[in-house]
Amino acid sequence: MLTLAGIGIHDVMDMSLKALEACRRADAVYAEAYTSRVEGMDRLEEILGREVKFLSRSDLEENAKKIVEEAAKRDVVILVPGDPMVATTHSSLKLEAEKAGVKVRVIHGSSISSAVCVTGLQFYRFGKTATVSWPLGSVVSSYPVNVVRSNWSINAHTLLLLDLNPEMKVPEAIELLFKAGMEDWYAVAISDAGGNVKMKCDMLSKLRDFSGKGLHSLVILARTLHFIEAECLKTFADAPDSLDEIVE
Amino acid sequence: MLTLAGIGIHDVMDMSLKALEACRRADAVYAEAYTSRVEGMDRLEEILGREVKFLSRSDLEENAKKIVEEAAKRDVVILVPGDPMVATTHSSLKLEAEKAGVKVRVIHGSSISSAVCVTGLQFYRFGKTATVSWPLGSVVSSYPVNVVRSNWSINAHTLLLLDLNPEMKVPEAIELLFKAGMEDWYAVAISDAGGNVKMKCDMLSKLRDFSGKGLHSLVILARTLHFIEAECLKTFADAPDSLDEIVE
Repeated sequence: MLTLAGIGIHDVMDMSLKALEACRRADAVYAEAYTSRVEGMDRLEEILGREVKFLSRSDLEENAKKIVEEAAKRDVVILVPGDPMVATTHSSLKLEAEKAGVKVRVIHGSSISSAVCVTGLQFYRFGKTATVSWPLGSVVSSYPVNVVRSNWSINAHTLLLLDLNPEMKVPEAIELLFKAGMEDWYAVAISDAGGNVKMKCDMLSKLRDFSGKGLHSLVILARTLHFIEAECLKTFADAPDSLDEIVE
Repeated sequence: MLTLAGIGIHDVMDMSLKALEACRRADAVYAEAYTSRVEGMDRLEEILGREVKFLSRSDLEENAKKIVEEAAKRDVVILVPGDPMVATTHSSLKLEAEKAGVKVRVIHGSSISSAVCVTGLQFYRFGKTATVSWPLGSVVSSYPVNVVRSNWSINAHTLLLLDLNPEMKVPEAIELLFKAGMEDWYAVAISDAGGNVKMKCDMLSKLRDFSGKGLHSLVILARTLHFIEAECLKTFADAPDSLDEIVE
């Protein structure tokens, strides 16, 4: 059996009791830290009380067959940052394993997809998520800006995840968004979600000096806000009073 | 301090090591089971090795002040199904506490919002989420159908959560959706996510006899699918070959 187990959003202590138990019972435990990252991965062996081998991107993609073959013979757990099914790499691995007749179990973990509501923004008001990627050569992708505009067309917030290779911070993401034609609009910068979370709401142009430890992400607000969302953003994320302009 | 800690998606073993530790160190531990439910709540005291008091809706809403006052004096943990910030009740409680100068910590938990990708549907392709509620008298709300249509306008999938009071199952949700004018379209019925998950993909009208233990939810597919999504749905959720019609 192949078990894909989420470590959760921030650090290894976000792992579930279920994931811990699965690791303790498994024949082999692997971990990967390239689809996202969590803190304390170097403490995994100590927490689990057993050996953990790290997998590279190619182990999980081009050479996935090797893992699937191993899982056909014995119980293999792969620990994954966040929730395992968010990364398409893991869906593809699940597909490959099931097609080979190998049973796959998924143990879920906490993820920025719901944790973003720590801002006070309502879960039901989020539209599509997009990633802001580093430019390929001089080409800045307009993809995340197009997703924001699609979401605006249905008055939805946009969660923007930032590239991890290398790790992008909010100020860099904002420059790329502006280069891709993004309008200046209200946004929330977030760092270290699930840990000592830091949040700041303002117009994008005013978030250019946002700094914070840990992974960064960004929410571009919908065209309008519920008054409770605005109140939360003022209390949790030091939003300016001008935010009231967009309360419906 | 007030700690809002997610139990996670399916059962008490989905709780994180961080939540367990917070409960063990707290002066008082409460739990609520009305915004959602997880299995094994009756085993919480045994797992935590301490007393857990259950809170009612009114304890957390009209009478939230009492909890906030207690958290001003000592460390209080409230255990919550799923991820705590998804329910607006908990955002409001966080707001009330922070306004009263009480520090609030959030420990995230796994949630259907990302776990839904266990279907093989891609996280980036989901639009707004909606809840299918029981009718008030004879009035069937058109809200979820409107959300599906908004999401179709940007070619996004729709996660539909089902009412919990009393617990709605997929066949009941489908009848309500059709009454509200929903078109017959491809969907995925899901039960027991995070546990012994069961998934079935077909046209809505053909999912009327879907049954499965645990909480149910439903995804209405976008207008088109990525070919990997279709392949996953055929492998994981027994989708019909006709699904290829909507592969882009």
